[in-house]
This record gives sequence, C-alpha cells and structure tokens, in this order.
Amino acid sequence: MTNLGIPVPPGFTISTEACGEYTRRRRKYPPGLWDTVIKYMSRLEKTMQKSSPSIGFGNPSNPLLVSVRSGARASMPGMMDSVLNLGLNDQTVQGLIKKTDNERFGYDAYRRFIAMFSTIVMDVKREVFEECLHDKKTSLRCAHDIDLDASALRELIDEFKILVHRHTGRDFPQNPSEQLRMGINAIFDSWNGDRAIAYRRIYKIPDAWGTAVNIMAMVFGNMGNDSGTGVVFTRSPSSGDAMLFGEFLSNAQGEDVVAGVRTPQPITKLEATIPEAYKALTKIQRKLERHYRDMLDLEFTVQKGQLYMLQTRVGKRTGIAAVKIAVDMVKERLITKEEAVLRVEPEHIEQYLYPVFDPNTEARYAKQGKGLPAGPGAAAGKIALTPEQAITMKAAGDRVILVRMETSPDDIHGMSASSGFLTARGGMTSHAAVVARQMGKVCIAGCETVEVNGDSSVRIGSARLNRGDFISINGFDGSVYCGDIPVMASEVVQVIQGTLKPEKSERYQYFAKVLEWADMFRSLDVRANADVPDQAVVARGFGAQGIGLCRTEHMFFAEDRVEIMRSMIMARSTADRMKYLDDLLPLQKQDFIGLYQQMDGYPVTIRLFDPPLHEFLPKREDLMVQIVRAELGGEDSKKLAETKRMLARVEELHEFNPMLGLRGCRLGILMPEITRMQVRAIIEAACEVTKAGGKIFPEIMVPLIGIWGEMKTQKQVIQEVASQVMTECDRIIPYQVGTMIELPRATIMAGEIAEEAEFFSFGTNDLTQTTFGFSRDDAAKIIDFYMTMRDRCPRCQAIDIDQKTMVCRSCEFHIVERADNILTGDPFTTLDRRGVGGFIQIAIERGRAARPDLKLGICGEHGGDPSSVEFCHRAGLSYVSCSPYRVPIARLAAAQSAINHGVSASARLASLPTRRMRTVKKRGKIATRSR
Amino acid sequence: MTNLGIPVPPGFTISTEACGEYTRRRRKYPPGLWDTVIKYMSRLEKTMQKSSPSIGFGNPSNPLLVSVRSGARASMPGMMDSVLNLGLNDQTVQGLIKKTDNERFGYDAYRRFIAMFSTIVMDVKREVFEECLHDKKTSLRCAHDIDLDASALRELIDEFKILVHRHTGRDFPQNPSEQLRMGINAIFDSWNGDRAIAYRRIYKIPDAWGTAVNIMAMVFGNMGNDSGTGVVFTRSPSSGDAMLFGEFLSNAQGEDVVAGVRTPQPITKLEATIPEAYKALTKIQRKLERHYRDMLDLEFTVQKGQLYMLQTRVGKRTGIAAVKIAVDMVKERLITKEEAVLRVEPEHIEQYLYPVFDPNTEARYAKQGKGLPAGPGAAAGKIALTPEQAITMKAAGDRVILVRMETSPDDIHGMSASSGFLTARGGMTSHAAVVARQMGKVCIAGCETVEVNGDSSVRIGSARLNRGDFISINGFDGSVYCGDIPVMASEVVQVIQGTLKPEKSERYQYFAKVLEWADMFRSLDVRANADVPDQAVVARGFGAQGIGLCRTEHMFFAEDRVEIMRSMIMARSTADRMKYLDDLLPLQKQDFIGLYQQMDGYPVTIRLFDPPLHEFLPKREDLMVQIVRAELGGEDSKKLAETKRMLARVEELHEFNPMLGLRGCRLGILMPEITRMQVRAIIEAACEVTKAGGKIFPEIMVPLIGIWGEMKTQKQVIQEVASQVMTECDRIIPYQVGTMIELPRATIMAGEIAEEAEFFSFGTNDLTQTTFGFSRDDAAKIIDFYMTMRDRCPRCQAIDIDQKTMVCRSCEFHIVERADNILTGDPFTTLDRRGVGGFIQIAIERGRAARPDLKLGICGEHGGDPSSVEFCHRAGLSYVSCSPYRVPIARLAAAQSAINHGVSASARLASLPTRRMRTVKKRGKIATRSR
Repeated sequence: MTNLGIPVPPGFTISTEACGEYTRRRRKYPPGLWDTVIKYMSRLEKTMQKSSPSIGFGNPSNPLLVSVRSGARASMPGMMDSVLNLGLNDQTVQGLIKKTDNERFGYDAYRRFIAMFSTIVMDVKREVFEECLHDKKTSLRCAHDIDLDASALRELIDEFKILVHRHTGRDFPQNPSEQLRMGINAIFDSWNGDRAIAYRRIYKIPDAWGTAVNIMAMVFGNMGNDSGTGVVFTRSPSSGDAMLFGEFLSNAQGEDVVAGVRTPQPITKLEATIPEAYKALTKIQRKLERHYRDMLDLEFTVQKGQLYMLQTRVGKRTGIAAVKIAVDMVKERLITKEEAVLRVEPEHIEQYLYPVFDPNTEARYAKQGKGLPAGPGAAAGKIALTPEQAITMKAAGDRVILVRMETSPDDIHGMSASSGFLTARGGMTSHAAVVARQMGKVCIAGCETVEVNGDSSVRIGSARLNRGDFISINGFDGSVYCGDIPVMASEVVQVIQGTLKPEKSERYQYFAKVLEWADMFRSLDVRANADVPDQAVVARGFGAQGIGLCRTEHMFFAEDRVEIMRSMIMARSTADRMKYLDDLLPLQKQDFIGLYQQMDGYPVTIRLFDPPLHEFLPKREDLMVQIVRAELGGEDSKKLAETKRMLARVEELHEFNPMLGLRGCRLGILMPEITRMQVRAIIEAACEVTKAGGKIFPEIMVPLIGIWGEMKTQKQVIQEVASQVMTECDRIIPYQVGTMIELPRATIMAGEIAEEAEFFSFGTNDLTQTTFGFSRDDAAKIIDFYMTMRDRCPRCQAIDIDQKTMVCRSCEFHIVERADNILTGDPFTTLDRRGVGGFIQIAIERGRAARPDLKLGICGEHGGDPSSVEFCHRAGLSYVSCSPYRVPIARLAAAQSAINHGVSASARLASLPTRRMRTVKKRGKIATRSR
Repeated sequence: MTNLGIPVPPGFTISTEACGEYTRRRRKYPPGLWDTVIKYMSRLEKTMQKSSPSIGFGNPSNPLLVSVRSGARASMPGMMDSVLNLGLNDQTVQGLIKKTDNERFGYDAYRRFIAMFSTIVMDVKREVFEECLHDKKTSLRCAHDIDLDASALRELIDEFKILVHRHTGRDFPQNPSEQLRMGINAIFDSWNGDRAIAYRRIYKIPDAWGTAVNIMAMVFGNMGNDSGTGVVFTRSPSSGDAMLFGEFLSNAQGEDVVAGVRTPQPITKLEATIPEAYKALTKIQRKLERHYRDMLDLEFTVQKGQLYMLQTRVGKRTGIAAVKIAVDMVKERLITKEEAVLRVEPEHIEQYLYPVFDPNTEARYAKQGKGLPAGPGAAAGKIALTPEQAITMKAAGDRVILVRMETSPDDIHGMSASSGFLTARGGMTSHAAVVARQMGKVCIAGCETVEVNGDSSVRIGSARLNRGDFISINGFDGSVYCGDIPVMASEVVQVIQGTLKPEKSERYQYFAKVLEWADMFRSLDVRANADVPDQAVVARGFGAQGIGLCRTEHMFFAEDRVEIMRSMIMARSTADRMKYLDDLLPLQKQDFIGLYQQMDGYPVTIRLFDPPLHEFLPKREDLMVQIVRAELGGEDSKKLAETKRMLARVEELHEFNPMLGLRGCRLGILMPEITRMQVRAIIEAACEVTKAGGKIFPEIMVPLIGIWGEMKTQKQVIQEVASQVMTECDRIIPYQVGTMIELPRATIMAGEIAEEAEFFSFGTNDLTQTTFGFSRDDAAKIIDFYMTMRDRCPRCQAIDIDQKTMVCRSCEFHIVERADNILTGDPFTTLDRRGVGGFIQIAIERGRAARPDLKLGICGEHGGDPSSVEFCHRAGLSYVSCSPYRVPIARLAAAQSAINHGVSASARLASLPTRRMRTVKKRGKIATRSR
C-alpha cells in the first residue's frame, strides 16, 4: 500500500523464512536477524523524526511506539497474535503524556499494553487483569472503563505490574528492546500454537509456511472525536453488492472493536463525523480494488482527522457473495473469466444449494442467540440433549437438532441421526464444526447463550426449553430461534425442480453464469450417479453429461419390489429364481426407459446387480428370536416351520464379511440368469426408446471384477443376450461393456481386464475399503480417532486436555509430547491420492496400454469432491460421476483443474466420444463399439 | 532304446508339432504329413522284410501289423488311446493265419482289433462288443474267452462288423491305409478329450504340448507258452528297494494285462518260464537305469522266446520310494546331490508325515475293497452318508468318514467336517480327490465295491454297514476296511516327537538325508509359525530357523484365559481394561519365555494382538435368544439385566465386516495399553531368559499397517516401553520393530513405511483377501465355483453333464461351448503371483529403496506351498515362515528354487543376518538394530 502512495504508518517486516529458521533452531534467531531488526528500528525512528522531531524508540521525551503483528501467506483470522503500544515503560509513558498532553490517554495506553503484552507474550491469563480491572471499577463505583480517571489508571498500572510478578516470577520488562524481542518471539511462537495448528490442518495450510512479523509505528484512534478506527469490506461480504460495508468506532483503539465493549457504528457514519477521512477511504478503496483486483477487507485508523491504512487483505465472503463478486468483476473488466472461475470455491457453489429458512417467516421470529456459522444451511427440529435421545427421536421419525455443551467422538452416532448441531462451546474448528462440514449438517458452534442442564432441559438466551421442544438454526449466519421455522429449498434448487422460473431468480442467473464459464475451460466430463428418473431430471438440470452410475439394485428397495427381490435371492433353484426374475424384468425395463428418456443423447452407465444381499434378507437374529417366541408361546406350528425354513436359508446365505463375499459379478457368474434378465431389460428398453426416436448409449458395467475370467464370462453372457434381444426387436443398439475397477487386484491386472472391458469406472468407495482394509460401516470410529490423535491424551485417549497445563483432565496424565494425527482427512471423502490414487494410476497406465481408446471415469463419492476431481483431471480420466447435487461443484472443480494444470492430451482424446455420442444407424454392423 | 542297441520292434514317430498343427487346422493334416507317413510306412515294410521276406502293410499273404500309440512329453497314464493289430482285414487275417499257422490266433487278433478300433476310433461303446461276446459265450456255454474256438471267433467277427454298421452307419474299414489315417486322427483327437484336458489342468501340463503318434510293428506275446507280455519297474515303486518289480502274463497280449481278465504273475516267474528272456530283461534294466539315471517303468513282449521292449519312461513312485531312490542313486553315483534334491517332490516329503495305520493291526483286518489312493494318509471313523450327517456327527465329537457315490461342491461343508472320503465313482481327478488333496484329507476314490443305499446304509464289498458304523481307509494304497483301525503318527513324526530314536528308523534317516542336502543349496531361510512352546519344539525338530510368526492372540483361546480376554475386550474404560491386562501380563510373559527357550539363538517374530474380536465375545444372537427366553420364562431379573448389559456392549462392538474393522494395529492405537502390556511381556521375558544365558532376538511385528502414521505411533509406544523395561532389568535386548504387510495400501506405501519398519513380513492370507476382495470365511464357495466352471452347465450351473452327448442332466440344456475356469487354483493355497505377487514386488522394490537392509519374509500359509516358496525365492525374500509340519517341504522347495533359478544376490545379502544373529553384548548401545 505504501508503494501505491496510500498513507500507511511506517514500519518493516520480518519475513516468514525467519520464522522457519526460528522453529528449526528451537526458538533461536538465525544469525544477523536481531542486528537487522535493530538496524531497521533505527531507520524507523529516523523516518518518524521527519514528521515529528526527536521521536525515538525508548526516547522518554517523545517515544516511538510500535505494533507487532503477525502476517502470514494465508489469512488465519483470529488465530495469530499481535501486540499494540509496544515501547511503553515507566519513563516513556511520561513522554507520551507530555507529547499528547493527555494524562488519561497515556496511562490508559500503558495499562492496556501491560495487560496485552503479559497475556500474549508472558502467558498470564487474561482474566487476571480483567478481574483486577473489575475490582477497581467496583471499588470506585465506575460503570465503564472510560469512567476511570488518570490516577485510577495509574493505580491499576502498579497493581498490574504486581500481578505480572506474582504470576510469572519476574518483573514486567521495562526495556523497550527487550519488549520488542519478546514480542517478536511471541508472534513466531503463536504460529506453532495449538489453535493455529488446528486451523492449518482444516484449511490445509502447510506448517512450513511460517508467519511474518510486521513492526509498525503506532497511530492512535483514541485521541478524541476526530480520531477513530474501523474495518471495512470493499463490497458486501454476504451479498456481494458493490458498496463499502463495515464498521467504525470513534475515539477508540483497534482492540476495542474486537472486545465489543462499545457498539461500533456503520461505516456510513464516518462520512458524517469525519467527512474528509471518509472521502479518502472511498478513494483508497477504489484504488486498492483496481490494484488487487479482488474484494478486500481494510483496517484503518483515523488519528486527529488523518486516515492511516493499517492492513488490507482479500476479504472473506459467503458463497453467494463470492459468485456475485466474481461475475460482476468480469463485467467490470477487472478480472478475466478464468480468474472468475478460479475465484469461486467449490464450497461457495454449495451454498447455493443448501436449504434456507423462508426469509419472511424467519424475520418474524426472535433471535435467542448467535454463534459461529460452522455448517451452512437451515434446519429446524426437536431438541435432543444426548446422542441416545437423538437416535431414539430419529427412529421415531422426528427431525432432530442435537444441542450439547460441546461434542466428542462418542457422540458420532447421535450426530449422524441429527439434522443439525448447536453447541455452547468451541469455535469454527471444534469437533462439532468439523463433523458438521464432513457430514453436510447444519451447525452453530460456540453459541454462548446456550446452557445445557443435564439431559432434559436447556436455556437458550431468554428461553428455557425441554428436550423435544422445537428450535431452528440458521447455519449461514449463526442465528438460533425457538420454534419450528419452515425450511425451504434454495432458489437454485427451486429452479432445478421447476418451481421457480430462472428469470425470476438473480441468484440462479449468477450461479448459472459462473458454471457456464467453467464449462468453457474444463476438459473432464461430469456425469451423475442416478438410479431413478427423478434423480436423472435433477442431474440434467445441474448439467450432468450422462449417467455415470445407475445402481440397479437401488431400484428394488421400493416397497412393491423388495418382496420379489427377497424371494429371488432366497430361491434355492435356478428355475425358482428365474420365475422371480421374470416378475422383475418388466419393472426393471420401465426404470431404464425412464432414465433413457431423461438422458436422451447422453450415455447411461448401468451397473449390473451389486446388492448387499443381507439388506434384502430377514435378519438372522430376528428370525431366531421369533422362533423362540413361537416355541415358548405355543404358536401356530405351520408358521413356525416356515420361519425355521426361512432361517435355514438365511443361515446358508449368511456371510461373516458381506463386503468380501457373494457380491458384484460373483452373483452374476454364479447365477447368470440375473445378468441375463438385466441385459434383456437394458436392451429391450433401449430398443423401445430408440423406436420412439430417442438416442440411447447404454454402457453396461460389470461390478467387482478382480479376475480376467470374470470379465470374459460376463461379457459373453451380455453379448449373447444383447444380440438375441436386438434380433428380436430388429434394431441395433450401440452399447459398450465395461467394468468398475474397485478391487486392488483389478488395478494391477488392468491390462488383461482391458482386453475385454471397453471402459473402466473407478469405484473409489470400494477401492478405498479394500486398499485400506476399512469397512465403511465399521471404520468411521477408527478414522475419526486417526484424525483426532493430536487432541487426545496419549495415555487414556480422552479428548479432554487442559491446553494450558497440558494435563489430561480424564486421567491426570501430564502430556509431554502430543501425538500426530494419523490421517489428515477421511479417505472416503477425499481420495487418498498416494495409496488409492497410486493404484488408479497403475490401472490407467496398464489399461490404456492394452486398449488406447479405453474410456475412464470415476463413480465413487469422490467424484464430487474438488480435490479428488483435480486428481482425476490430472490422472487423465475422461469423466467424473457424482451425486446429482454435486454436479455443479464437480463442473467448477474440473474447470479449475484445467485452468491450473492444463488439459492433458489423453484426457482430451478420451473425453471426445462421451460428450455426445454418434448414433450408429447402419444395420449389420457389430453392435458394440468395441474394436 | 533302439539307439542303445536294445531290441525294439521297428517303427517311427509323428511329432507333437504335427498334433499342434492338426488342432490349429481344425482336424486337418499339415501339408506333406500324410505323404511322409506313407513314405515311412514303406520304409517300415522294407525293414520288416529284412527279418521276414515279403511282409507288407496290407499284404494278404504276409501282412505287416502295427500298433498306433500316443506318446506325450509328460506321461498321462490312462488318458490317451492306443490301437493294436492295425492292418488286419478280411484278407490280411488269412495271411496272418497262414503265416502263424494258427487259425484261432488270427481270428482272435482280428476280433480284438475290430472291437478296439471301433471303440477308440469310431466312438462305438465298448459294452456293445462286450455284450455280444458275453452272449456268444453264454450260447456256447463257454466260461472264458479262451474257450471260444476259431469258428466261434469267426462268427463274432461277422457279428461285430454288423454291430459297427448299426452303430456308426458305415462299414468297418477294410483298407489298412484308411485304418492308419483314422487311427492317427483318433490319437490326435484324444489329446483334446475331456479326460485328457482335465488331467492336464490338474498336473499343469500346457495344452499346446500336443501328443506324438508312435507307429510300431506289432509283436505278439500270445503266440504260445514261449511268449508273453509284462510291465516292470526297475526298483520298487512303493518302497524304493533296488529290485526288479512287476508283473508278467504268459501267452497274452498287452491289453489282457490291463483288462485284468487273467491274474498276472510276479516278474520273478519269468525267470522260471523263459529264462533267457528274463536274463535279457535284467541286463536291459541296468543299461536303461544307467542311461536314464532314474527309476523306470518298462513294457515288454516276449514273442517266441525273443524279448522286445515296447516302451520305457520314468516310473511313478510313492514319496517313500522317491526319497529312497534319490538317496540310493547318489550313493550309487548315478546322480548328483542337486539332482537328488530335484527328484524329490514336495508331496513326496509330505508322505513321510501323514498318519499311518499300525501295520501289525492293519494286517489283521480283511480288505473290503480297493479304490484309487486319491488323498494320502490313514483315517478311521464313523460312516456319514450325507454332508449333514457328517456335520452333526463331527459336532457330537465323532471322527467321520464321508461315504458317497460321488461328491459335488454342495458337499463341501460335510467334507470339511470329515477326516476322510470314500467314493464309489470317480478317478484321481474327481471332485472328491481334488478337494481331499486341497484340504489335506484322506481319500479313496472310485472304489467299485461301494454301493450307497439312500442315506442310512451302505454295502462295501461283502459287508453291509449303517451310518455310524466304523470304517478305516488307507489313502496310501486305497484299501478299505470295516472297523476302527488305530491310526498312529508316521515314523518321522514319532522321531520329531521324541517317541522313536532316529537311529531306529531307516525312513527318518532317508528323510533327514535329503533335507540335509537341500539345506546345502537353499538361500532362503525357513522359519515356522508357532504360537506355543510345543509347536516350537516340532518346528525346531523339522529344522525351522526361528519363528516367523507367533500369533499372540492364539495364546488366549486357552480355557483359563479366554474369560480374562473377553473381559478385557468388553471393558468400557481404560482403567478397567488395564486391570485385565495386568492379569494377562504374567501369562503372556510365561508363553514368551517358553518360546524363547525353544528357539535359543534364533529370531522370534512376535505379532502384537490381532484378535478376531467377535470370536472372544458372546454371540449377539445367543444373547438375544437368552433375553427372550428369560423374559418369557420370568427368570431372575438381575441376571436378565446383566445379559442385557452384555448385549448392549456386544452391540457396540458389533461389526458388519470384522475383517475390515477394529483389528491389528488399530486396536493397539485406540488402546495403546494393550501394546504396552505385550511389549512389556516380550522384553521382560527376554531379559529373564538372557539372564539365564539364552540368546534372544525378538522381532516385534505390528499387524495390519496401512498408513505410515500407524507404524510411527506404534513404534514410539514400543520403544518407550522397551527402553523402560530394559532399564528396569538393567539389560539390553537386541530387538527389532517391523510390520506385517497385509493390506494393498501397505504395498504401495512401502517406501514410507520402511522408514519406520525394520522388517516386513508379508501376511499373504490377508493380503490375498483384500487384493481379491474375498473373505476366506465366505468365498470358499465362490472360489470352488470359479475352479469348476468347465464342469458346469452354463445355463443352470449344475455339475451333471453327460460327457458323450454334452447334455446337462439337470436342465437338459445342450452345451455347445464349455465355459473356462476363472481360477486354476485357490489363491489362498498357492500365491496369486501376478496379482498379490505383483503387489509384493512393488513393496519389495519400494521398501528396499528406502531401507536397503530391510529384512523381508512371508508368514502367510503360502510359506509352506512349494510354488509360492519358489516365488518368494525369486522375489528375493530373506525367509519364508510356515506351519511347523510344512517346514521340511519349504526347505526342499527353497533348495529346488535355488538350484533351478540361482541365488539372487539380494536374497543372499538379506538372509545373512537372520541365519544366526549376533548377540549385542555391549551396553549403552542403542538397543534396536535399526540405522
């Protein structure tokens, strides 16, 4: 900013490299650093003397005061420390008083400095000083800090110094140089503080980056009514509207804004009180936006009418704002379309999709509290105060909001049963907040008006509520309400669902615009996982270029079908099974017709049956209990015999590890009649739809292939039935046969398998399971543990450590060294690039070597995770497939990957045929598009 | 043999390449083949004319007759066809009669030829001719074939010719050239017959090898009492004793020996009847053994006092014989020690270990039948006639022998519950035989005296038995007895167990000698998997060079411990769990002391707890049933509450896929107190034993590592506790910390993991499970199906196909093309070299790159499988570890691999330190031998 000619108090910066060296050298400076600091302090003194003669660091008559602040490569709001007024001591305070001719101001600055410095640099608890201040006000019958006069403040200074000695065993440092050194150390050390480390883990900021230290001459906003301090955004961070937005506090220092002792005024008030400063600010705002080409947040101080800028950085914003700002800035020719696409983060797009409260209704409710908006969306439901309550209420069909003082990994099941969480303690990185974002739940953390009393009642603000009472939480802004505010779909979702016209929604238009631009850049196709026509409609609405995964077994959980399915699975003979399959055929065919119609012109990948058999069967233990009941109760012997027969069959089909048992293609190989039925349905449906003019490109996907022979056998059956049906219908359907790569063996044998398979779709859910040996159903607890090792007592594993004393509150173990987290992320959410990704790369290499035009996609849940999409782009896949609501996120992520990493030639080549396939019209040609 | 100057009837050979061409050309000869055959037939005529003037093929006055036989690269006894007397027709038979002056001989030869040729070449059923022959004998009141005179035989010839026409629609071919061409085709075709293909699959003979065709002038053993035919081995094929061993039939043709219509005499009788032939035979025997340097089987014919050798090949032998012959031949300087080691197959060594009947007792029992010895060993038990019976009887604590007409995959569970199988039908490659060898069960297949009547009784020879009656079966020779013959350990096992002195057992000495030689050549170390001191004794007895896997959880299935273990697992708090761990510590320590003492001077790899948690817990369904019973029965409410509490905890611990859940290092990470207890026991035990002068090299193995951080965390805990215990005991124990590589992710991340792990042991059981996605508990049925696809109806999957008509007897589907087997072997038995082996190779490369002195071993059950041992040798592992009884087999396989493939430099290097580790005596050195 100084280089731009903007008024900034003079100062200098110690670079982040110095922080790295400091950490490596175990809290020692690299050679020369201190000398350099001293040298630049002298220069600073000289610079300041130009405006005010004989000012100097430690100069008792006209002292130079400085602020010492952190400044990192990535903003970590609230995580790092800063110290103001540094340079004050018993002598210099007198110089300050003399110079400003304001005794109260001088002593006030000094007592603030002692408290701030001792808290941050010397590890004294903040409460020590607050208590003392409180006692002083009580004894003098003062209501506010401002009521304390100079002598009271002088007394306070003495008392503070005694307290410092009592708590640290040493005097408050009087030497300004020593203060400076200690201050710098404290900033460096705060980089390695627990809060900062936790924050970096979440936002994936490398530990090695380190923090810079900014040393800047102090300016004072508390020098009267022509002074003040404030924070503004250059555009609205919540709506994105292009107007100055922020707060201002007259006659105050920066910390007063943060501490919230006085209520700041909207920035527009500045115009009225100090018009020349406001004018300067609007000019600077425009200059900075032009320079940085982004929305900024600015900190400023006005000292006796003179505006100083203290800091600027790219402003945090909501998703809604991010999209609007990006699109507007393209219109204003500030940025290019590529930049706009890069500016919008995938989570920003998500915010367009979360449910919201009806704004008119919400306005009628009274806010009972406000916490941190830790998980976006809006949710209303009955209060549960324990995880068990949540589970029970959910089981009874209720919507549940879990309200806790704070959550712990033991609450996971209860959290999973809830629509949202509200906690009294904890910040944006607390357990509740992290889990909420992982699970996609609404969450408000650290709402201090919440007070949980045992497991039956809770106080929220002025309301006393019991479990089962309704509350509503707004995860966009952190508001908490009593009562059941109706939740509605977001504008974008309403448009997709057809209940709102696109032209009526400005939001939708911004949303659509940025995705339209994303599509200009991306090379990766985006498909959706959809099992029924309804989902296909949504998928198309969000721009899916086909279906990448239709799980045919999902079609059979419907009530009218589950019975047939169960009988089919329990059939003992092929003849019996075929009877049930005959019943399923027309239903299945109708499903496919529906999907094809929605996906006209696009490919539809249909996975053959991969049912979790046990989910279709009666539970063993239920049958056992039934039998005992019947036997003891002397019930109908015919029914008893039937139950026993059923149990016998269930026992036969029982598997110890269903995940590794009779699944996927194994079922189709042991019972090829199932494959036959499905292929018949797929091809008959295709014939019917093409007769009506549709363009259908079915891709038949054989699941869970691990052995070449499995693929070969199933392909033979598929081709045989397909040819037969096409002959019967007298039509040619251009279909492909491929496989899901979801077993480690399939990756290493990909070369052989690609001889038969015309496409691979990486089933990364299952591949992650077998690569790690983690069952998704069972391993959540382990993965959560692995991600929270750092927070646990190494002896008893409890997450209950006193952060100051490092003593475990549960087992009283004194923690010397913290454990490291074993996992930084859940591999089921974000693709494990090196392990699972390594196998995927082996499969791609070997598969493409065997079949150069092999089509490659991914259809695990990772298909909608931005980091995983980037991996897929770089690995050269043709497409990703994800749930319909993740399609926009995947489109954006794919575009960002292409802009950041370029388009790989193989990806471009491979993606061509799937974009829009040509219909094969000629008769007599081989039907599949294989070589 | 001709080149050695041994008398062989003249002839020539069509090479195996011709067979390959014939198959490729769809049963057409390659150009020039037939002309060449004709050319060599003329030469053969000329050669024969030298001994007998004017003989010629088709010459009616003095016809040349030939045999047409197969001759393959590997012997396939009984699988391939041959035709004798080819060249006979209505004219030439007269010439034969005239020439031999024996009308009966001539017509007998002709009628035999018609039957044999029509059966083999023209696909007429053998029974057609047998029935006709039988009717003829009945109508003429003749008891034996030999009683039929020339005119009866002439009538038979006419009747046979009519039968041929009726069954084939064509005349019996009179043209000798046509006979020859058809005969050659039939031999070629027999290579692709189902029996031959099935045999090749089992013995892993490539289909591409093809068969040769040998065309040889006929000599006749049925020309009077100075003629005859026989088969001899140059040494005893059952004991290996160096003496001519075989059978002889005077005045007979080869087929009579096979058909068993007359009882042959021992070969020694030949000396009495035709002494000059016997003398020639003994001379030839010696000459051939010197030439081929192996034990041989010989077929010969004596025609009017003149000995002709028809065939020789390396003789099949029992394991006992194979070892004795190999050792003896080294003594006789016929072969080298390397060759001796290569001559002994791993299965041969196994035969020394199978239980046997007490020979004195067995001799007192009457044989009720004899079948094919399809699974070696001796077993006695109660008869079960259905798999269900077998399961029930086994559950009641009985030893079971399953007796079936034949077995099918549906019987697998019953087979698994039995000690042995006896079937009425099926050969060495039948389902029962294959399964028996896989499961290591005793099996006698195709015992024709067995007749099963329903599911309650069975006739075996003259005995009528009911289910539950005792029978005894000898799988070495195929004998079946009624009654319960005591089974005893083999001589070798008796020596190992210390109940027989080595010097008293010649068998043991031969066994030990060949393994002593094996040890001279191998570079791979062999360790044993042993969990308790008893097993360690056996392991050392068999020459194990340490323990490669001690599964500590196995120690806790003992009755006195399982309760503590269960309580430990069910404990809800760390404090609670530690109480039970304290109880386990002394027990565990004692176990280790026992193991160390047995393995003095050798490494002992101890795997930390990897318990199948659910096996230690009460069953959920049992508890549920108990609760219902208690509730309905109005039982003690206190006990009911306790059961409910227990159920609640079991539910908490319940896993859907225990294989992929809380196992291995995950347990030690979530509950580090378990690891602490175990490490304490390991190191305390080591301190105690070294104090008493023992040399202990514990290797602590962390199971189921998939993530670098897991290894790091556990290693920290291990090192912390180990240092503490060593300080307490004031001793230094040289221990290592390593991991079991048993997850796919561990293989691809091996580089990182090796930064922490000092050794890798490949846990190929689990690695196979996760690589294939096969749970061992559940996938047996699928794997069995995959290995038997060829035998199944492609429509209904039944194994019940009429091999002649290729119609499925179950669903009447006409099979056009057979399926291919998806798996040729069970990957849990023989390592999947390309899939699982591919991952192992990745792990070796990356692990060694990160830590060049990384010790590498394998401890899955594959460690005792010869083919897998070969893989391990070639991959450069340091050692294999297998169950104690597989140690000798692994030693032999390792030697054979080294001889066949050379010693890889890395293997030699890597194996050095494990052979016998140096004790680290110096104090103050870092205890682990890590870098």
